[in-house]
Amino acid sequence: MSHVSPLAPKTMPDMPAIDGARLSTAAAGIRYKGRTDVLLLLFDEPAAVAGVLTRSKCASAPVDWCRANLKSGTARALVVNSGNANAFTGKDGREACRFTARLAARAVGCRPAEVLLASTGVIGEPLDAAAFDGVMEGMVANAKPGGWLDAAKAIMTTDTFPKVATAKTSIGKTTVTICGIAKGAGMIAPDMATMLSFVFTDAPIAAAALQKLLKDGVADTFNAVTIDGDTSTSDTLLAFATGAAAARGAPRIGRASDPRLKGFRQAFETVLADLAEQVARDGEGARKLVEIKVEGAVSKTSARRIAMSIANSPLVKTAIAGEDANWGRVVMAVGKAGEPADRDKLSIWFNGIRVAHKGLRDPGYDEAKVSAAMQDPTITLKVALGLGRGRDRVLTCDLTKDYVAINGDYRS
Amino acid sequence: MSHVSPLAPKTMPDMPAIDGARLSTAAAGIRYKGRTDVLLLLFDEPAAVAGVLTRSKCASAPVDWCRANLKSGTARALVVNSGNANAFTGKDGREACRFTARLAARAVGCRPAEVLLASTGVIGEPLDAAAFDGVMEGMVANAKPGGWLDAAKAIMTTDTFPKVATAKTSIGKTTVTICGIAKGAGMIAPDMATMLSFVFTDAPIAAAALQKLLKDGVADTFNAVTIDGDTSTSDTLLAFATGAAAARGAPRIGRASDPRLKGFRQAFETVLADLAEQVARDGEGARKLVEIKVEGAVSKTSARRIAMSIANSPLVKTAIAGEDANWGRVVMAVGKAGEPADRDKLSIWFNGIRVAHKGLRDPGYDEAKVSAAMQDPTITLKVALGLGRGRDRVLTCDLTKDYVAINGDYRS
Repeated sequence: MSHVSPLAPKTMPDMPAIDGARLSTAAAGIRYKGRTDVLLLLFDEPAAVAGVLTRSKCASAPVDWCRANLKSGTARALVVNSGNANAFTGKDGREACRFTARLAARAVGCRPAEVLLASTGVIGEPLDAAAFDGVMEGMVANAKPGGWLDAAKAIMTTDTFPKVATAKTSIGKTTVTICGIAKGAGMIAPDMATMLSFVFTDAPIAAAALQKLLKDGVADTFNAVTIDGDTSTSDTLLAFATGAAAARGAPRIGRASDPRLKGFRQAFETVLADLAEQVARDGEGARKLVEIKVEGAVSKTSARRIAMSIANSPLVKTAIAGEDANWGRVVMAVGKAGEPADRDKLSIWFNGIRVAHKGLRDPGYDEAKVSAAMQDPTITLKVALGLGRGRDRVLTCDLTKDYVAINGDYRS
Repeated sequence: MSHVSPLAPKTMPDMPAIDGARLSTAAAGIRYKGRTDVLLLLFDEPAAVAGVLTRSKCASAPVDWCRANLKSGTARALVVNSGNANAFTGKDGREACRFTARLAARAVGCRPAEVLLASTGVIGEPLDAAAFDGVMEGMVANAKPGGWLDAAKAIMTTDTFPKVATAKTSIGKTTVTICGIAKGAGMIAPDMATMLSFVFTDAPIAAAALQKLLKDGVADTFNAVTIDGDTSTSDTLLAFATGAAAARGAPRIGRASDPRLKGFRQAFETVLADLAEQVARDGEGARKLVEIKVEGAVSKTSARRIAMSIANSPLVKTAIAGEDANWGRVVMAVGKAGEPADRDKLSIWFNGIRVAHKGLRDPGYDEAKVSAAMQDPTITLKVALGLGRGRDRVLTCDLTKDYVAINGDYRS
């Protein structure tokens, strides 16, 4: 795709370096020509690591690798490639992981188990890991602090823009930094973290605490985004804490409940939310960013299910693509969610305009006014169920002809 | 839509009359111009009736009406309109049902509770039932045996062809006839019967037995079809048995388990399967009829869930639209179903060609051969899980740009 999503953020933040982390990218020629497709992150000292991985029953080989090697809680390096997902590649896929990790370990000077891996791209085709052989030594030699935008670019597939986010906060009296990158585009749904996202901090946070922060953080960010309801075999979100800020006086944090983490927790979630929103903004073929808000449900879980039912409905998504405030389809999607709902208590708003109230078209319904509001590139669709206090919010995008074009032609 | 689906059946069966049933259609001008939009069926004697209705929590007013009035097990008339679904119309919607049933009852000479109703079309707009006032008397006066094709045409919305099916069988030594009509197109998924379908027979079968036959019959027919995973608020499948064949010597059947029903049960399910397949063949924008077969699952229920996960995956459906045997996406859809699956035991076939075997690309994989097979208008996608004996089959269609066009412009 040569065009950039019209929903792409207008500005990109300055992305500071993370002390203790260096990175490098290279063009290994896995699939694409004339662009980078491998990313190496390396940590000067073992970093604490946490991860959230796809719940697919057919996970990719790198996901299996991460699941096994996250247990130690420390990492020395991360290798990510685009172009090939190394999924459904059997024994050869496992071997490709081992080979890549050994290659990186030798170049970095660590054990293979200290190298985490992620791959994204085509499923079911063998990954020729030998392609990394020619670039690994050079990547280690060239690794530098910063360079996050290059990192985000190297992991793109059908993404139309690189996704980066950052925040600064403090632990005790010491400033710490968080930087994250992500790639998304299609096959995005909950029951996963996201396609691929990696978040780095210099804060000295122990692996168990980082894992808790990450798990809490994804619930309303990456797990509240859906593009097409399809869950990838490769979804991987990893967080790394180099701990380098300890040298500048940051206290070492062992528990996620440590009150000194309050600001960090918030900043960390802001970065996750920012990246997750960028994933929705770059949904394949997306022309509208759609926020679904559900309130008055019997519980937050129920609100989430109803919001996801709306967000994943092809009929709702195509109506929004057509700038049609077709709230009848929203009723349909509420009805099919299987959650408690009372047709005659339901109210629906599009971008703040109430179109349905207590089971009826709103008495003040004005088609022209609503149609004008639907031309906005950002649509907030609110549903009030009138049953309880459960509320939730998810992000999605519209379903356009371009989604079909992108996914009908992806391999060929 | 002026074009007819390329998947439409090449021939239409001769549809015989059903003794004891007469029908009539009219143009009431509910929404469309220059076409019929109301169907009246009337039964000379009270007919046994059975029904399967949407499981939506936000069912339409006519669905509520049917649910209440199916309990008696008998009906004297059926009124169906297209153009407006009378869904999410509150008290006025209930009143429109009462008004329509009273109108028909007066014209037919029965009680309003003996009139069943169904509506399809736009959701959330008031149905002006007064429109029926001018046509009802004339419809009753003009009702004739047969005319099924006209009936099927009157209930179309975005359908591109009318859907009819018929079968003859015998009960005892007496020939009995089954005739069915359906309309579908979008918003088709299980947890429902279908959009609208009505099946008629002259067989003398009691309501309770008919209900059992219908419930059994939908499981592998209408409930095994999905277009977009969206469940309508209006899905209604009704079966009527006039019993007129009793006059020709057919025995009266009180129980579904009666062995004399064997042939009828089979013929009845054939008609349901035929109509359900036509619904899939007329999926909005469909260019391919897609049959998903799953075998080797731990149970039939598990096989159904996996088949539906594949059938509802936008990425699988767009790949098929692009004539791309992208079996990686099939793996993805198996993986996200949440059912037992072992990546390394999975095999996948497209139109009989094995593309993946035991967790790997098939050793004999030939892209050219597979690509040629994908050009067929009918695609059978088979997945073998290698875990147990559970098997199932569902029908769907591909997801094309036309689906997006149809649903982005439907209301405007």
